[in-house]
Amino acid sequence: MTPKNLAVLGSTGSIGQQALDVARRHPSKVSVVGLAAGENFTLAQKQADEFQPRFISCAAKQLTCGNSVCLPLETMATHPDVDIVIVALPGGAGLGPALAAARAGKIIALANKECLVAAGEILLAEARKHGAQVRPVDSEHSAIWQCLTGEPSQPEKLLLTASGGPFREYPAERIAAVTPEQALAHPSWKMGKKVTIDSATLMNKGLEVIEAHRLYGLPYERIEVVIHPQSIIHSMVEFADGAIKAQLSPPDMRLPIQYALSYPERWDNADLPRADWAKISRLDFSEPDFSKFPCLRLAIEAGKRESTFPAVLSAADEAAVNLFLARRIAFTDIALLVAGALDGHNPEGEPSLENIAAAEVWARQKVLELARSL
Amino acid sequence: MTPKNLAVLGSTGSIGQQALDVARRHPSKVSVVGLAAGENFTLAQKQADEFQPRFISCAAKQLTCGNSVCLPLETMATHPDVDIVIVALPGGAGLGPALAAARAGKIIALANKECLVAAGEILLAEARKHGAQVRPVDSEHSAIWQCLTGEPSQPEKLLLTASGGPFREYPAERIAAVTPEQALAHPSWKMGKKVTIDSATLMNKGLEVIEAHRLYGLPYERIEVVIHPQSIIHSMVEFADGAIKAQLSPPDMRLPIQYALSYPERWDNADLPRADWAKISRLDFSEPDFSKFPCLRLAIEAGKRESTFPAVLSAADEAAVNLFLARRIAFTDIALLVAGALDGHNPEGEPSLENIAAAEVWARQKVLELARSL
Repeated sequence: MTPKNLAVLGSTGSIGQQALDVARRHPSKVSVVGLAAGENFTLAQKQADEFQPRFISCAAKQLTCGNSVCLPLETMATHPDVDIVIVALPGGAGLGPALAAARAGKIIALANKECLVAAGEILLAEARKHGAQVRPVDSEHSAIWQCLTGEPSQPEKLLLTASGGPFREYPAERIAAVTPEQALAHPSWKMGKKVTIDSATLMNKGLEVIEAHRLYGLPYERIEVVIHPQSIIHSMVEFADGAIKAQLSPPDMRLPIQYALSYPERWDNADLPRADWAKISRLDFSEPDFSKFPCLRLAIEAGKRESTFPAVLSAADEAAVNLFLARRIAFTDIALLVAGALDGHNPEGEPSLENIAAAEVWARQKVLELARSL
Repeated sequence: MTPKNLAVLGSTGSIGQQALDVARRHPSKVSVVGLAAGENFTLAQKQADEFQPRFISCAAKQLTCGNSVCLPLETMATHPDVDIVIVALPGGAGLGPALAAARAGKIIALANKECLVAAGEILLAEARKHGAQVRPVDSEHSAIWQCLTGEPSQPEKLLLTASGGPFREYPAERIAAVTPEQALAHPSWKMGKKVTIDSATLMNKGLEVIEAHRLYGLPYERIEVVIHPQSIIHSMVEFADGAIKAQLSPPDMRLPIQYALSYPERWDNADLPRADWAKISRLDFSEPDFSKFPCLRLAIEAGKRESTFPAVLSAADEAAVNLFLARRIAFTDIALLVAGALDGHNPEGEPSLENIAAAEVWARQKVLELARSL
């Protein structure tokens, strides 16, 4: 078998590093032909030295590596010698390369939430048109995808599990006073700062509900969130006969990353942790508390309103999370500012990419403006 | 779509009645063309009056029903107008019709454990040879089948869940004194007497391990039993990448029965219960206690020894359970008698159906003989 050629966009981030870890394990199955990094030049150079990719890119400083060619992200993502593009770029940076890869009919392993939330309909329509495949790299959407494999019937319900974050059992008044340090201590997953704060507010789960709606075409009424603190069940699918399928494993992002590369096969990987049922002993479930975690409700509402609302939600949240991390606002202000931006937004009907970008710029400014008058 | 023609062998038993319940719900998808019953003439006549099948059979007394033709079981199971044969006959009665249906290339919805345990290799070889499909009607094996659907890779491990039965938390000394009434009160499933006692001894799970080995071809070392008292997860499959898929639902045998008819589709069925995650709240897991429940170990060992050992296990257990139900032996004597029969058995190499039948007769006599000297 010829190895699949992989371009890793965002190679120095958490997902990018784990993707390279998977690639390192399977040299006969995947070959890293492209690496694109942002500001972490030192790590990017180290990765380039190890993998000797044909195509490189680093926003901070030019990498030097044998005969590697420096390419812009979109050129790398569409190069004929690239089979699979891992889009693990942060925030808005993911959309351009993802769209380019979609138009070039690539397999896209998508680890960027913002793309799907803000411009998912456009991205997925382009992918369909050009025969590209968008494969989720996210434990929840990968779990749903795994559960749908081989099922010819449309599911009745998607059940997204959520750890509930570090403040799940806090009384409402204590949540208002939490610090960035407390919010960054996630109980089950090690992730980037933005997504960790989003997990604490449950905004992350709200964004995932929107993603699930886009990826699997179910109406919001048939997408439920179930709080499951152990993060062992990564999500579930319920069918017309009441049967539920769930995908489980100890939390490790390398599993969904690898599945996006190995699909429909599964590759042996001794690095991946195994469930030990003697130790797991119990799994808990409860309903989310929408009043303590209003971001979840805001996200689902923005999703239902469609148009540019999801883009505003996502951009407003990003701006608000930055303010919280900079200690300029309280934890509970994140929801207030996002709600304020959504309330003040005039949607654009069926939006173009330009409308979406403009709505995002507007939302970020609106959050800063609202924050000043808090 | 033309409805599939169904023959229900064992229509008055627990599985038979539930199969008719499923058929009643889906008149456009399945048509009951054959009904075969045993001793319960009254119910059999009622079922015949309702479904007006073309072929009928009743061991107790001749049914009368319009133009229905009375046919022997094997003739019914192989009739060209029958598409799917539900084999829900008790004990040894299932094998003949199941083999006949396999040789006629039918779809066999198999709800008879003894067939697979005692003569599974022969039955499955005949099914393969004649293009018949054996579909499990058993919550555990159906769960595994559902989890394997669409997966091209051989699984690494099968995880059979077990409720643990009513005596899961009893200290060993209390188990010796349990009565048939206590043993018949199963915590999660309503089933026939034999299988309910087998659930209390965990022999049922042991027989299922052997069935799983036969159906899915995994060595015994890769089939694990996990105690899960709520009986919501019906079984799990672990793959080479550490991903586990589980099938869940509130315990109701109509789901696996229906799936054996609807596969690969799933049919809407408002009769089937839905999981309510607000109520489920927690799922527990633990390792089985082989010393408190020696039948589980006996079954796995008999499975590993192959040849006529599984047949001896199954027949000896049936005889011992009958003695327990007749209050002639103690609950813990079931394991003693089965162990005694296995110890005294001279296996037959790769056995023929005749060898298997002879081993079963021998095992039943051996159990009676051993019981006399208890």
